[in-house]
Amino acid sequence: MSVGIVQPQSVTFDTELRLESGRILGPITLVFETYGQLNADRSNAILVTHAWTGSAHLAGRHSEEETRPGWWDEIVGPGRLLDTDRYCVICINVIGSCYGSTGPTSTNPRTGKRYNLGFPVITVRDMVRAQLLLIDHLGIDRLVTVLGGSMGGMQALEWATQFPDRLASAVVLATSPRPSAQAIALNAVARWAIFNDPTWKKGEYRKNPKDGLALARGVGHITFLSDESMTAKFGRRFSARDGLFDFFGQFEVERYLTYNGYNFVDRFDANSFLYLAKALDLYDVAWGCESLEEAFQPVPVPIQFFAFTSDWL
Amino acid sequence: MSVGIVQPQSVTFDTELRLESGRILGPITLVFETYGQLNADRSNAILVTHAWTGSAHLAGRHSEEETRPGWWDEIVGPGRLLDTDRYCVICINVIGSCYGSTGPTSTNPRTGKRYNLGFPVITVRDMVRAQLLLIDHLGIDRLVTVLGGSMGGMQALEWATQFPDRLASAVVLATSPRPSAQAIALNAVARWAIFNDPTWKKGEYRKNPKDGLALARGVGHITFLSDESMTAKFGRRFSARDGLFDFFGQFEVERYLTYNGYNFVDRFDANSFLYLAKALDLYDVAWGCESLEEAFQPVPVPIQFFAFTSDWL
Repeated sequence: MSVGIVQPQSVTFDTELRLESGRILGPITLVFETYGQLNADRSNAILVTHAWTGSAHLAGRHSEEETRPGWWDEIVGPGRLLDTDRYCVICINVIGSCYGSTGPTSTNPRTGKRYNLGFPVITVRDMVRAQLLLIDHLGIDRLVTVLGGSMGGMQALEWATQFPDRLASAVVLATSPRPSAQAIALNAVARWAIFNDPTWKKGEYRKNPKDGLALARGVGHITFLSDESMTAKFGRRFSARDGLFDFFGQFEVERYLTYNGYNFVDRFDANSFLYLAKALDLYDVAWGCESLEEAFQPVPVPIQFFAFTSDWL
Repeated sequence: MSVGIVQPQSVTFDTELRLESGRILGPITLVFETYGQLNADRSNAILVTHAWTGSAHLAGRHSEEETRPGWWDEIVGPGRLLDTDRYCVICINVIGSCYGSTGPTSTNPRTGKRYNLGFPVITVRDMVRAQLLLIDHLGIDRLVTVLGGSMGGMQALEWATQFPDRLASAVVLATSPRPSAQAIALNAVARWAIFNDPTWKKGEYRKNPKDGLALARGVGHITFLSDESMTAKFGRRFSARDGLFDFFGQFEVERYLTYNGYNFVDRFDANSFLYLAKALDLYDVAWGCESLEEAFQPVPVPIQFFAFTSDWL
């Protein structure tokens, strides 16, 4: 059953956060949604962490008119996998994003203008430390689990390794403990595509730089599918609408990238995209440790890892 | 031993070529180089076919001042693998390229101006059919071998399957008989990067659109290395000159892509890049056949295939 109509919530913390970079960020606003009731001893909370371009809108609808429910609606609700009759499910928009939490589109209190590139470079660890402010604020001592995929999985890993006493388990989907050189290279060309767009204006745009951002997202879509699943989905089929020998004629896979790229520019901010790309590339669960073993050594929390064979990275 | 100083040669054919697309291309100029002497019965010729951004300048130097020899100098010369004491080695710049043979930078005889996007879409088969004009012109009935890598390997495959009586063997390096959806997707984003560059002007530029072309080449460089070799070469090392938390700070792999991308724009034309990318994507050795088996069925020519594990595609 669906959770029905939900309202996003928002809290602003006056606390300033000292980031991994040494820079200070604050005040910090976090937008979040909750589904189900917190029990009396606040011991039934599950945190779901979102991916690169996700939001706090995990499940349900903001209004009857909203055409699509939250991004993982299928598993959240009464009787569903994350059963809201038993659990209080929480999803928080990460800092750096453009869906309400403090990010490059927010107003910089020191200047009264949008941060844009004045926003500090953040890490996944910074995102998680900001989330901890909210979990503390809600009076939750220990989460039942932290669960997420891709960049959400990195957050779950950070929760487990940095704050092991604050959660009973972590579930990590389709995530690398540290992106490979190839993954970084693909994000690098995505960034480059935005930098190349003259309407990006070093981050000082009024309108999202659409051609650069669409291309950047197109690069992302290549990595969302493995070679095998891309072959299964598109093969070498040429667009039926185009001539094979038209200079601008497209293969089906090419149309798919273009279509998804341009669809993206209406819903995501280019600077946020860049900051989160950077956070992804910098991510290393063993940050500050000598090895992966050392990073996981103090972790008494059971971590479940899942990978998808249809995902290239 | 090096072949020493060599001179590029050029022939223009008045013959018009009917392309796979049905369009006509002509007159056709081919630039080529030869190393070693053709024997009396012209039975000692080897054709080396070049890759996407290659040229006819396979070996030796055009002058004492030239800093670097031809692109495969190590294997061509007296006593070298392709022994010019025994063989006459030939390399021909493909049509569509920007190194002398007819391509989008050539003058369109119908307009008196550069072809630019008025150039027809060509295929690897068209390239090979143009090469056949020259092999006929040189009076060579049968090549000892046709040898090439990447797009050069596609040409070798086309020689073997289309003109099996014109060669005794083919050597195909690091080539796919048809690019996969993923390979097409990567070329698609490379094309897109050029289309996005406002200085490209739908092909009517005076100066190469450098940011778009550099990015396109950067995408190419990702595919030239496998995940493993990229990890071995760069790992997750961050540029020593940049701060880890600088917004524009780069990983080593990112610097490498940028460096190679911008190095490329001085030596290759953007429109040629686009036309050859298209030819690569359209390439299918079984073009016009029901299957790969049918394509290879009439081929009595021994074909040797080599692949490199360090190459991603």
